[in-house]
Amino acid sequence: MNRWKRRGESVGFVPTMGALHEGHLALIRRARKENSRVVVSIFVNPAQFGPGEDYRRYPRPFRRDAGWCRQAKVDLLFYPAAEKMYPADYRTEVHLRDWENIWCGRFRPGHFAGVATVVAKLLNIVSPHRAYFGEKDFQQLVIIKKMVADLNFPVEIIAVKTVRESSGLAMSSRNIYLNKAERRAAEKLYPELKKIRADLLTGRLKPTGLPGRLKSRLKQLPEFEKINWKLDYAAVVNNENLSTVKKIAGRGNARILVALWIGSTRLIDNLLV
Amino acid sequence: MNRWKRRGESVGFVPTMGALHEGHLALIRRARKENSRVVVSIFVNPAQFGPGEDYRRYPRPFRRDAGWCRQAKVDLLFYPAAEKMYPADYRTEVHLRDWENIWCGRFRPGHFAGVATVVAKLLNIVSPHRAYFGEKDFQQLVIIKKMVADLNFPVEIIAVKTVRESSGLAMSSRNIYLNKAERRAAEKLYPELKKIRADLLTGRLKPTGLPGRLKSRLKQLPEFEKINWKLDYAAVVNNENLSTVKKIAGRGNARILVALWIGSTRLIDNLLV
Repeated sequence: MNRWKRRGESVGFVPTMGALHEGHLALIRRARKENSRVVVSIFVNPAQFGPGEDYRRYPRPFRRDAGWCRQAKVDLLFYPAAEKMYPADYRTEVHLRDWENIWCGRFRPGHFAGVATVVAKLLNIVSPHRAYFGEKDFQQLVIIKKMVADLNFPVEIIAVKTVRESSGLAMSSRNIYLNKAERRAAEKLYPELKKIRADLLTGRLKPTGLPGRLKSRLKQLPEFEKINWKLDYAAVVNNENLSTVKKIAGRGNARILVALWIGSTRLIDNLLV
Repeated sequence: MNRWKRRGESVGFVPTMGALHEGHLALIRRARKENSRVVVSIFVNPAQFGPGEDYRRYPRPFRRDAGWCRQAKVDLLFYPAAEKMYPADYRTEVHLRDWENIWCGRFRPGHFAGVATVVAKLLNIVSPHRAYFGEKDFQQLVIIKKMVADLNFPVEIIAVKTVRESSGLAMSSRNIYLNKAERRAAEKLYPELKKIRADLLTGRLKPTGLPGRLKSRLKQLPEFEKINWKLDYAAVVNNENLSTVKKIAGRGNARILVALWIGSTRLIDNLLV
């Protein structure tokens, strides 16, 4: 990577946990367009999974992923072993005061410190000019942007819009966990969020009314009658700093964040208001 | 800095809090010898001072420091404002599990996280090939080496031996706080540590006996009768990982660490066994 930089080439970096889908490919294509070299990492980062979470069962279709990277003209695929990234005496953690404990952080203690730490490591290893992250993991995106600014990493963080299936379901490596009935329910989330956004913008719904409204709507849907589901949280937050928004002040400043369990799968989604 | 690197020049970096003394100059000279470019930073880092500590009174003889840097052929002197390094919405912290809470960390909560964080920032800003740290702040040195390894910073950390006055007193920006009687007492510490080292090597003194031995020796010295003093801790630790050493296994594996209050000044010193 350093040889490329010394030759004056630009390096774009797409960190992933593998199990690539169209969302990742959108990141890779964007990196391909904006840089002369593209590096993709595949690393299922144990530090960002909690004790009861899906670290072990997280999908690892490495050969398929590598083939996709080759097709997408990735110059370098970095797939370190966990023991190399976190040797036995590993002890350094990057924390983001408060932000790591709100929204998804409340339900996944240690998750965002694990994310921030591995991204710091990967940025130092790859030292790219630009790094690409999806808006689907919105709190992660905000936290990484903040870490990069706070710690002065010499890299530009580029956010790429969420890629959705035709149903509106946000692409996620975890969607494969869903059975048919669960998938049908999951597909209803995005249309509901769009209706909620419309009502927030007209003022018919107040931001504080979001969780109640979403829950009562989902309860009425036949697709949600057939499955187990639970809303971890739903909130309208400031698009820059994740703080709770009490009043919508025009378009483009707030964002709906949702984390919803469908069966034993935790899905997240978000939508700019 | 990046322009230098692109031209193939090597960059050596000496981070300091200013109030430069011969110890800093030894770091700068070493950097000067090993690199084509030398960067020095002067930043009294608020994040590494506790509430009751000497952040405000810490000496800031900037013009004198800048003159010394010029004389020492420093290519670039970086002296950022605290508000630039830590804007109001700053929130990222680098922590080193356990190590930040032992030895000096027990007495200075938050200190080593503050050190690790500012060094991470400075390494990203300067992006040097080599960074130079004094052995005098030994726990700091071990922690920074660990952070650099754990977070994969592309930099070589170079340790430089403690510079001492002719009396043996380790050079420190805080020595100017000492009045005459306090300085005379402080000058006795190093000779005592050398005697203790000899006794550790012959086996006459066990590592666990160190604090008791040091306290009883200092009590007997007339220089210590005239001043207020307090031993924060004294310990024999593993030279690589700071763990307590119970038995000396030959030369070069262990280190005596001491933190001693002389009046209202906290001095630290250390000695390879």
